[in-house]
Amino acid sequence: MKRIGILTSGGDAPGMNAAIRAVTRRAIDKGLEVFGINYGYAGLVAGDIFPLTSEDVSDRIQRGGTFLYSARYPEFANVEGQLKGIEQLKKFGIDALVVIGGDGSYHGALRLTEHGYNAIGLPGTIDNDIPFTDFTIGFDTAVSTAVDAIDKLHDTASSHERTFIVEVMGRGAGDVALWAGVAGGAQKIIVPERDFDIKEIAEEVKEGRQNGNKNMIIVLAEGVMHADDFKKELDKYGDFDSRATVLGHVQRGGSPTVKDRVLASKMGAYAVDLLLDGKGGLAVGIENNKITSHDILDLFDSKHKPDLSLYDLNESLSR
Amino acid sequence: MKRIGILTSGGDAPGMNAAIRAVTRRAIDKGLEVFGINYGYAGLVAGDIFPLTSEDVSDRIQRGGTFLYSARYPEFANVEGQLKGIEQLKKFGIDALVVIGGDGSYHGALRLTEHGYNAIGLPGTIDNDIPFTDFTIGFDTAVSTAVDAIDKLHDTASSHERTFIVEVMGRGAGDVALWAGVAGGAQKIIVPERDFDIKEIAEEVKEGRQNGNKNMIIVLAEGVMHADDFKKELDKYGDFDSRATVLGHVQRGGSPTVKDRVLASKMGAYAVDLLLDGKGGLAVGIENNKITSHDILDLFDSKHKPDLSLYDLNESLSR
Amino acid sequence: MKRIGILTSGGDAPGMNAAIRAVTRRAIDKGLEVFGINYGYAGLVAGDIFPLTSEDVSDRIQRGGTFLYSARYPEFANVEGQLKGIEQLKKFGIDALVVIGGDGSYHGALRLTEHGYNAIGLPGTIDNDIPFTDFTIGFDTAVSTAVDAIDKLHDTASSHERTFIVEVMGRGAGDVALWAGVAGGAQKIIVPERDFDIKEIAEEVKEGRQNGNKNMIIVLAEGVMHADDFKKELDKYGDFDSRATVLGHVQRGGSPTVKDRVLASKMGAYAVDLLLDGKGGLAVGIENNKITSHDILDLFDSKHKPDLSLYDLNESLSR
Amino acid sequence: MKRIGILTSGGDAPGMNAAIRAVTRRAIDKGLEVFGINYGYAGLVAGDIFPLTSEDVSDRIQRGGTFLYSARYPEFANVEGQLKGIEQLKKFGIDALVVIGGDGSYHGALRLTEHGYNAIGLPGTIDNDIPFTDFTIGFDTAVSTAVDAIDKLHDTASSHERTFIVEVMGRGAGDVALWAGVAGGAQKIIVPERDFDIKEIAEEVKEGRQNGNKNMIIVLAEGVMHADDFKKELDKYGDFDSRATVLGHVQRGGSPTVKDRVLASKMGAYAVDLLLDGKGGLAVGIENNKITSHDILDLFDSKHKPDLSLYDLNESLSR
Repeated sequence: MKRIGILTSGGDAPGMNAAIRAVTRRAIDKGLEVFGINYGYAGLVAGDIFPLTSEDVSDRIQRGGTFLYSARYPEFANVEGQLKGIEQLKKFGIDALVVIGGDGSYHGALRLTEHGYNAIGLPGTIDNDIPFTDFTIGFDTAVSTAVDAIDKLHDTASSHERTFIVEVMGRGAGDVALWAGVAGGAQKIIVPERDFDIKEIAEEVKEGRQNGNKNMIIVLAEGVMHADDFKKELDKYGDFDSRATVLGHVQRGGSPTVKDRVLASKMGAYAVDLLLDGKGGLAVGIENNKITSHDILDLFDSKHKPDLSLYDLNESLSR
Repeated sequence: MKRIGILTSGGDAPGMNAAIRAVTRRAIDKGLEVFGINYGYAGLVAGDIFPLTSEDVSDRIQRGGTFLYSARYPEFANVEGQLKGIEQLKKFGIDALVVIGGDGSYHGALRLTEHGYNAIGLPGTIDNDIPFTDFTIGFDTAVSTAVDAIDKLHDTASSHERTFIVEVMGRGAGDVALWAGVAGGAQKIIVPERDFDIKEIAEEVKEGRQNGNKNMIIVLAEGVMHADDFKKELDKYGDFDSRATVLGHVQRGGSPTVKDRVLASKMGAYAVDLLLDGKGGLAVGIENNKITSHDILDLFDSKHKPDLSLYDLNESLSR
Repeated sequence: MKRIGILTSGGDAPGMNAAIRAVTRRAIDKGLEVFGINYGYAGLVAGDIFPLTSEDVSDRIQRGGTFLYSARYPEFANVEGQLKGIEQLKKFGIDALVVIGGDGSYHGALRLTEHGYNAIGLPGTIDNDIPFTDFTIGFDTAVSTAVDAIDKLHDTASSHERTFIVEVMGRGAGDVALWAGVAGGAQKIIVPERDFDIKEIAEEVKEGRQNGNKNMIIVLAEGVMHADDFKKELDKYGDFDSRATVLGHVQRGGSPTVKDRVLASKMGAYAVDLLLDGKGGLAVGIENNKITSHDILDLFDSKHKPDLSLYDLNESLSR
Repeated sequence: MKRIGILTSGGDAPGMNAAIRAVTRRAIDKGLEVFGINYGYAGLVAGDIFPLTSEDVSDRIQRGGTFLYSARYPEFANVEGQLKGIEQLKKFGIDALVVIGGDGSYHGALRLTEHGYNAIGLPGTIDNDIPFTDFTIGFDTAVSTAVDAIDKLHDTASSHERTFIVEVMGRGAGDVALWAGVAGGAQKIIVPERDFDIKEIAEEVKEGRQNGNKNMIIVLAEGVMHADDFKKELDKYGDFDSRATVLGHVQRGGSPTVKDRVLASKMGAYAVDLLLDGKGGLAVGIENNKITSHDILDLFDSKHKPDLSLYDLNESLSR
């Protein structure tokens, strides 16, 4: 193996640049050449490929987004798409790849490995919804952005004794809501993994008000319901001077946190080491504070499990 | 004059605490006693009034919101409401007041002055929509929060070549949109003070794409249209991979910026000086970088004028 | 057990307030009464003790510092000091304690347990220098503050092609330097746990310059050497346009990060659960992403081990 | 006039990139071609000059530092240096220049104008020490960074009842100290423009302690004295548990504030308009909230005057 490629795929996440930097620098340090591939699999097929130097990834670790751009490219699920991609790899003399993205992008990595081009997947997504990893690259930053917003809403909630319903990202998984809820001191967290009863919540809010709780925040995972709809349901049970707020795409951006930068750096270096060991078709994770890897195939049979102890913790701390 | 009261009214704004601190400290420094009034005019009428010491306002300058709480209280427009308030002022021996809030709260200040209780108004609102002042307390912080969000959206817009429509606060005035648009490097600013043609904007976005502009942000004042509706209109003219984001109440909170803290400190001290000069019924402003005051009556006949040169500047810089 | 006390001791750390909140809320949720003790062991001995309600810890999770104040009180190492403290516990009817602080404060917790008052220690220190825990409360925030400063120095280092020597906290342990170095993209990390040769470093900086590396940051743990001294040594080997910067006490303050808030919340709740189980003389930790506890006695025989894999990782990524 | 050049000179300041963007975009919008000159006057003389497109300045407005790099180049004070620079201007067909930097860089601008190449100076420096402008580009960001640090020190000062002496930038002028002191809620501000008596300050600190003031911050302009020396002097009059902190170069970096971005954008556009009017040898400023210009020659005879009303305000508000 002499040349590796690197691409980012799916929704962008803070820390992707830190991961690209780590892959590039580690590979160069080990004597490899590195090529950047723009726009994910679409760019691979189109041959939008260029050499990456150590200097190119300087001053990148702190930047949000991905300077290799990202795109969704469903055509790569077809063999024709894959073969076109492989043609480009041949053309540029690239022997192996690192792919950073959500689990959608892992399919491509697996297919390329099957075609004889070892590919390693790194979990780059703010949703934290990937199996066999406690944390994904970008998750901590997204939660931090959400909590920063919740802190600001606390100021105005306190001043006016309002109730805020804050919709955070997380289509399939409640991780962002769970972490942002605990860290934001939410009165209540609503996630797809747990049932809820709006009437009961209304009772709790009333009770909280009576106990002198002046700043009530309900954190809602977008996968459950829209904040506006939740507000309408809640308002049926009383006047809580409630406001719905959707944090939205802001959660995708921003300079990555320390946790995300270090995670991305460790994972990026580890991916290169796996390739140097002749391995492919693996997804890198962090489990119990250790960098690990698993067959991508195993991921497809598994489901990510959020840390629901946070839900129970919050129930206990919001009283 | 021996005792002054202070209250915050209307929507809360970052810097209100800095203003309360300044009023309190200046008054104490000049030998006065100071009383805080909770929940604006509602608390005045209800007698929710307590002495404020220098220590009480320590560690407050950097906090968002208002620790005196705020509330809307339309009943204070009636004479009965006002007389109840005056009864409380008598009871607590308060001779004069400083009122921090939007122009709604200035009516109360004027009425109290007419009843013989000098009251000075400070412009505390994120909207910047008050006449005879270039800036209101809280405006710079709200714009900073909006620009911080726009910076984050830029990251993801760049990574995906998307167009973001960002709805910022400002029901009647385009100030937040104008400042956030220029500081955020917006492709386009949409404000109530200027006409716009969605078809033309669609053309500009297309053109921008062709010129290699990868991160397109359209900043929209909430008074013009909802972001979702704007998106629908825009999408009629092409596929811009557009996303609508509503920043919402987050803009109200957060630690005040340097500009807001200094402005609030200057204005708070000046309000006390006016009261010591035996004046009332005045609204404090900053005009051409100098602290000024005007009859509240004059404000009611006037209209705030946003700095529309920023609109033209942005047109020129977004090419 | 009906009543528990809580105190913070030693140097303050961001997240202490989040831990106090968690202890208080969890205990109240479990039917206990909670008393706050101001100024650590000094306040315990002096009887500076007061009841804490759920409302008292509202709006605290996001605040830096400790609202129970902290103080060093070496007199508590003596039996007389301890007996005076126990007298106060009797007076207030307090059966057990949670102590948040560095390992100095664990001695007091152990002594109180030996006297029949169960006490649990939580690791609250920015230095991360406590055995049997991967992370202490406050560490992630301190590193984030350091990295935020390093990011700013990068801007000016890039503009002028300067070399910055950044001294970060960590008297005995290199943890802050290791994490801040990797997350800040440092050219070099200098920690007490690893030897270094200034001449070699000078060579590396020269080489980096030749390779086009424009922003060079050397992160130095304060326990190794002062930044000014390091600069003088470095300058002997060439003109690197170097600047020494000491980040200092700023690293102790600020709103805690998500990671610190969640860690403090989990640990605080766990400490109450341990007390409810009748346990004392234990120190809480997080190991391999799980909340754990160990005999305080065992901690005194052990030494904290920094994650030195970060050192090697950085060597590889800074090329 | 068909082609203009742009360079940044002297110490870098946040907002320089926003100014470069504004100059470039405005000039292109007016039909001009724009050339960037790296490393200030050194790069001009060396011919380190390249065309700037609208796209080149995209995604720059929010970045600290200057992507054109900066350097000090005293040789440009000599006629030979100037003639070499002019040779390069001829070679690249550049007719006029915009120079962003401190007043040192204005000398070069004046000389080039005298040689027939109109040059306009923009005040880019964090020190705010330039005559005929109320604010320089970068000043608000530097103060914001200082105040952010002071806020953090407040947390730890409160927790431990310490006194912090915070040294901020400002060699010749007290502006940073004045603004940071007022916005940071300092107990005392020490600037070169006002005398001070350390014994009196010690008395005030003692008094403050007795009045329950728990978090004492003394903000010291670096031009007056080093923080360590101040601490030593202060400690002669009592034990204040004082700590000295030097904020240092961190104040130079970071993403520019809204105020700095808008100021830089307005000034950059205005500089181009002046060149289009055939003017040169002028320095742009903002006075009483209006963009203005003055002969550079007049600046050399004048001295910047800090807003000392802030000093008196702080004396009144820190009681």
